[in-house]
Amino acid sequence: MSNLLDEIEEITLMGPGPSCIYPEVYRALSLPTLGHLDPYFIQIMDGIKELLQVVMKTKNRLTIPISGTGSAGMEACFVNLIERGDPVLILINGVFGTRMKDVAGRLGAQVDTLEFEWGKPIDVEMVAQKLKDKFYKIVAVVHAETSTGVRNPVAEIGELLKGKETLYLVDAVTSLGGIEVATDDWGIDALYSGSQKCLSCPPGLAPATFSERALEVILNRQTKVPNWYLDMSMIAQYWEGKKRVYHHTAPINMLYALYQSLYLIVEEGLENVFRRHQEMHQKLVAGLEELGIKMLVDPPYRLPQLNAILIPEGIDDAQGRAWLLEKYKIEIGGGLGPLAGKIWRIGLMGYTAREENVNKVLEALGEVVNQK
Amino acid sequence: MSNLLDEIEEITLMGPGPSCIYPEVYRALSLPTLGHLDPYFIQIMDGIKELLQVVMKTKNRLTIPISGTGSAGMEACFVNLIERGDPVLILINGVFGTRMKDVAGRLGAQVDTLEFEWGKPIDVEMVAQKLKDKFYKIVAVVHAETSTGVRNPVAEIGELLKGKETLYLVDAVTSLGGIEVATDDWGIDALYSGSQKCLSCPPGLAPATFSERALEVILNRQTKVPNWYLDMSMIAQYWEGKKRVYHHTAPINMLYALYQSLYLIVEEGLENVFRRHQEMHQKLVAGLEELGIKMLVDPPYRLPQLNAILIPEGIDDAQGRAWLLEKYKIEIGGGLGPLAGKIWRIGLMGYTAREENVNKVLEALGEVVNQK
Repeated sequence: MSNLLDEIEEITLMGPGPSCIYPEVYRALSLPTLGHLDPYFIQIMDGIKELLQVVMKTKNRLTIPISGTGSAGMEACFVNLIERGDPVLILINGVFGTRMKDVAGRLGAQVDTLEFEWGKPIDVEMVAQKLKDKFYKIVAVVHAETSTGVRNPVAEIGELLKGKETLYLVDAVTSLGGIEVATDDWGIDALYSGSQKCLSCPPGLAPATFSERALEVILNRQTKVPNWYLDMSMIAQYWEGKKRVYHHTAPINMLYALYQSLYLIVEEGLENVFRRHQEMHQKLVAGLEELGIKMLVDPPYRLPQLNAILIPEGIDDAQGRAWLLEKYKIEIGGGLGPLAGKIWRIGLMGYTAREENVNKVLEALGEVVNQK
Repeated sequence: MSNLLDEIEEITLMGPGPSCIYPEVYRALSLPTLGHLDPYFIQIMDGIKELLQVVMKTKNRLTIPISGTGSAGMEACFVNLIERGDPVLILINGVFGTRMKDVAGRLGAQVDTLEFEWGKPIDVEMVAQKLKDKFYKIVAVVHAETSTGVRNPVAEIGELLKGKETLYLVDAVTSLGGIEVATDDWGIDALYSGSQKCLSCPPGLAPATFSERALEVILNRQTKVPNWYLDMSMIAQYWEGKKRVYHHTAPINMLYALYQSLYLIVEEGLENVFRRHQEMHQKLVAGLEELGIKMLVDPPYRLPQLNAILIPEGIDDAQGRAWLLEKYKIEIGGGLGPLAGKIWRIGLMGYTAREENVNKVLEALGEVVNQK
């Protein structure tokens, strides 16, 4: 019987996630597994909370990783805050906003949406208008729309909601660790991310944070959270306090990996990390321009960590990407939904955002362009 | 800033899970991360499905790991099969049966239960009686009740259900890889397990399987599955077919680990693995008897992989376990619910089920008994 793992080749991950993993994170993954109630493991849990508070810029005590991938983070935020019939406004300009609508709808929310062209940012003025018409229990938006490379005006939308009873729910899957995410300053009540983007950890965890206001809403629900696995009122009892109450067995080794990646980010310094992402982005864009490759998104709304480029004319989408994978061992992403076949997505997330990777992808894309 | 990971000590995990991890699984965890749509990674996914089919003794094509811990497996089975108002019968004789009731109730099922004393098995005759009174869409039972060490008569209950329209849902979290789990022969329609028990992989994945009948029920629901993250109709499209449809980013490195642990089990041979568990169990029980330590469960219903012992008289529960952890670096489990303070749980799961571990825990328990 042959073991498929023996033949895994290292790929430079420059797609929309997973990103390249820090070597120290690989090491952390294979440290000895401890029990989920081991006193030393509980210290590591506390360490993760503290590091997440720094990276998320929040004082929220309920700041913890959800035991699932980024989408489990989305599910956790909605399922804990929504009760059947609740009015929810979702701002959509890509796949992940669309997914929010599906998630909230399944939970019985009364969902309104404001939809914008994919590749363009959310229009804050239109949101302000919409908020005048109707009270929403929740307004939800994606910060960094992974499907398009657009940075949405999360701080500005937060301003509109200040002083209101509405809860502000933000998807920071692709933003956290790549650009600023100021949870408290922006008035965010529930925020989730994923381990496999700018944190450069393998996929499998969804760091999340809930404000005191959000926690109060959860603790005062009329009905139980219709999802035992993601019920934050119980999960909080495992992650907090002197006596830890077992809920589900935590994904120990993935939590080591997350601890390590947060540790490296805090050690490098958040501002330095953001600057590195920005510099690598600029270098990439300059190189792309030289190659005559165009960006999808207008400069003010571009995410440094996720660069959507128009597929060079005459190049086949799937063939081009397969060639990059086979010849250069570089993975980039295709387009999704209406952008399928039109764009490629080049990630410069976390440990991927290094000069050697930018040079490598530019060299490879140069060959693609010249080959046609 | 000190790094907490630098001080992790290796602990011999002899509690109710996580169990000791195979060295090869630690290596697998830190192999280079691939993209979740990488063609080579898709081969590994297919390999995992095939290995799981062997270990679960099933031909079900929908045999895959859920991206969460064992409890996410429970959630996935119930949330996909239940629609509001569905009649469900849950057989309870421990924590995990009780958890099933909570999970199903939150989903709006009309839940009936049959409850049995903790530490005793489910009475098949009483189940047969109950099934005469009323039609149930689902009958659910825990195979290996982790909270008590009892093996429930899953095959016999399956016989009662054969030819009926009722779906048979089984928790195999602690049984899979430790004792036989014959999914198809026993007529099981939905079954889930956890990676961190007898598979000796870190916690974080819940292998699950669904029969064709169960899949048909899922595909013909009146309402959408009220949980986007665990919707099997979408997850199946990522795990099956020629064109894989992205759902959520799979937990890549954890899947490497699961592949490796299944590979080792199949390589050793299922029957050999079960025999090893049985032999280590017998050796442990013989040693415990010499020490005058009594077992909670009557011999015919004992799980080899989870041994519930009565805490020796005069020994403090928490102090005794803390002492085992500190002096011997052995973790064992305490009791839960009505058995808290009364029993200890000694796991011999997967890679833990080796002679050196049995000797080590017997030596340590000998000191505990003589110390009092």
